[in-house]
Amino acid sequence: MSILAVGSVAFDTIVTPSGKVENILGGSGTYFSLAASYFTDVRLVAVVGEDFTAEDEKILTKRGVDTRGIEHTKGKTFRWGGHYLDNLNEAKTEFTELNVFQNFKPRIPAEYEDSTFLFLGNIQPSLQATVCREMGKVKLIGGDTMNYWIQSARPELLETLKLVNVLLINDGEVKMLAEEKSLPRAALKVLAMGPKALVVKHGEYGATIFFRESAFGIGRHPFRAPTLPIDEVKDPTGAGDSFAGGFMGYIASQEEINREVLKRALFYGGVMGSFAVERFGTERLQSLKREEIEERFQIFRELTHLE
Amino acid sequence: MSILAVGSVAFDTIVTPSGKVENILGGSGTYFSLAASYFTDVRLVAVVGEDFTAEDEKILTKRGVDTRGIEHTKGKTFRWGGHYLDNLNEAKTEFTELNVFQNFKPRIPAEYEDSTFLFLGNIQPSLQATVCREMGKVKLIGGDTMNYWIQSARPELLETLKLVNVLLINDGEVKMLAEEKSLPRAALKVLAMGPKALVVKHGEYGATIFFRESAFGIGRHPFRAPTLPIDEVKDPTGAGDSFAGGFMGYIASQEEINREVLKRALFYGGVMGSFAVERFGTERLQSLKREEIEERFQIFRELTHLE
Repeated sequence: MSILAVGSVAFDTIVTPSGKVENILGGSGTYFSLAASYFTDVRLVAVVGEDFTAEDEKILTKRGVDTRGIEHTKGKTFRWGGHYLDNLNEAKTEFTELNVFQNFKPRIPAEYEDSTFLFLGNIQPSLQATVCREMGKVKLIGGDTMNYWIQSARPELLETLKLVNVLLINDGEVKMLAEEKSLPRAALKVLAMGPKALVVKHGEYGATIFFRESAFGIGRHPFRAPTLPIDEVKDPTGAGDSFAGGFMGYIASQEEINREVLKRALFYGGVMGSFAVERFGTERLQSLKREEIEERFQIFRELTHLE
Repeated sequence: MSILAVGSVAFDTIVTPSGKVENILGGSGTYFSLAASYFTDVRLVAVVGEDFTAEDEKILTKRGVDTRGIEHTKGKTFRWGGHYLDNLNEAKTEFTELNVFQNFKPRIPAEYEDSTFLFLGNIQPSLQATVCREMGKVKLIGGDTMNYWIQSARPELLETLKLVNVLLINDGEVKMLAEEKSLPRAALKVLAMGPKALVVKHGEYGATIFFRESAFGIGRHPFRAPTLPIDEVKDPTGAGDSFAGGFMGYIASQEEINREVLKRALFYGGVMGSFAVERFGTERLQSLKREEIEERFQIFRELTHLE
């Protein structure tokens, strides 16, 4: 199986209580691809500028990520700077230079057309919809969005949500999208917009998946996968994208998609997110071992397992 | 078995997005006692003023709470006013009138001396320590504290923590008490201060229990009990105290105290907290059925149960 991921590649400048890094490789597509690469084949569609080096690309290709879909154009790669000095759970943006990302139009290489899964990183909703329509034959479409699009491109986003099977967003985004303060009610409203399942990311507390009735099996109850910081949180950047990579990657590694698979996928999402934050940037995601992933899966499973 | 609870009885004026109530019965001792009353016998030590009516007392006695330890004095009962209009997870205090609570010195009636468990609500740490010493023969001492005491009475609090077996506080309080931003490290530091177990309350996300090595059994891993708002959150007041009541109450209902009991107790804490927030004040805690409690325990258990 294989996942086609559409997202951003960026150079990040990050300050956290543990230190500072400048212009290191980041972006939603990068974190997603690296995290998913431990479970399945990943193909990345993104755009970079002339400052994106062979060494940067090697970070992805060393993990087997297919980078033929990364478009190289004139100009500079997307740059973001932010800090987490007040609160490790919330980035304060210092600057955003969209650069080549500003005119990004995802182009799917012919070699990617047989991808079995699709993940839409957090880009303009109309672009997400275009990719959905092009890749209509995949087994499952996962998608992300953010406050900015919920507020500034609501009609386009609502169209896109009709095409997305599993939406992965955080508590605040769910409530904003549904215009409803109660999480369970907000989840019901979002599911009525199209997705068969909604994954609500709770940052350091894990994530909850809500199912549309009779989607992926029977049952009306949601499911929660907890997480716990195991080591020190050095840099929270990319935790949500790494979560999505672990979640989608695990699903793509399974024969069938049913509720049990989605529940385990939620745990693997938490596992990959918890690794991502242990080092600055993508460092920890570059050289994990499958045994480390399984070991942490067991720790998180035992974290809430009653005899 | 029986729990002796020391805490506050108050009249609260509360504004939430769901409405407003004035001068309704509240206070940490009240919420704790009502929640624990579904599991075991509860005896309450607190202080009230002349405005505390027979009807107020009946709310407690109807649930079988022994109120002989409530001292009636001249003056007005503790009053608190606050709102949750900006954030359902955080009360903004509008006024605090300590009134008779200002000079509260817990007096343990002779009839309470055979209590098997002790819970110290959030009062001055030196008073907590005095009660601990008086009640030294109980099987387990649970205790609460808050930011205010951590900052203004640290030396006294550190003395009290040597006497408390299980401390129940929230994320922010753990980090402040330990002067450490990483939760697992902060938990280790707090356990080194005395308690054999530390329950960290995460609000709507549940709670995690950390164990001192070899305390209550073997194992180095913490345990998390998740929660999920089932109905609308009408009024978050008292959720933490109701959590403590469910947690301590369940423990007191069991023959032995071991890790499995403490894990299940953490779930029952979440269950009672989730009921408390469904109505204003103590309304929901006044008339629960044991079947409703068990049903919700199962829902929370399934919320994270992998096959």
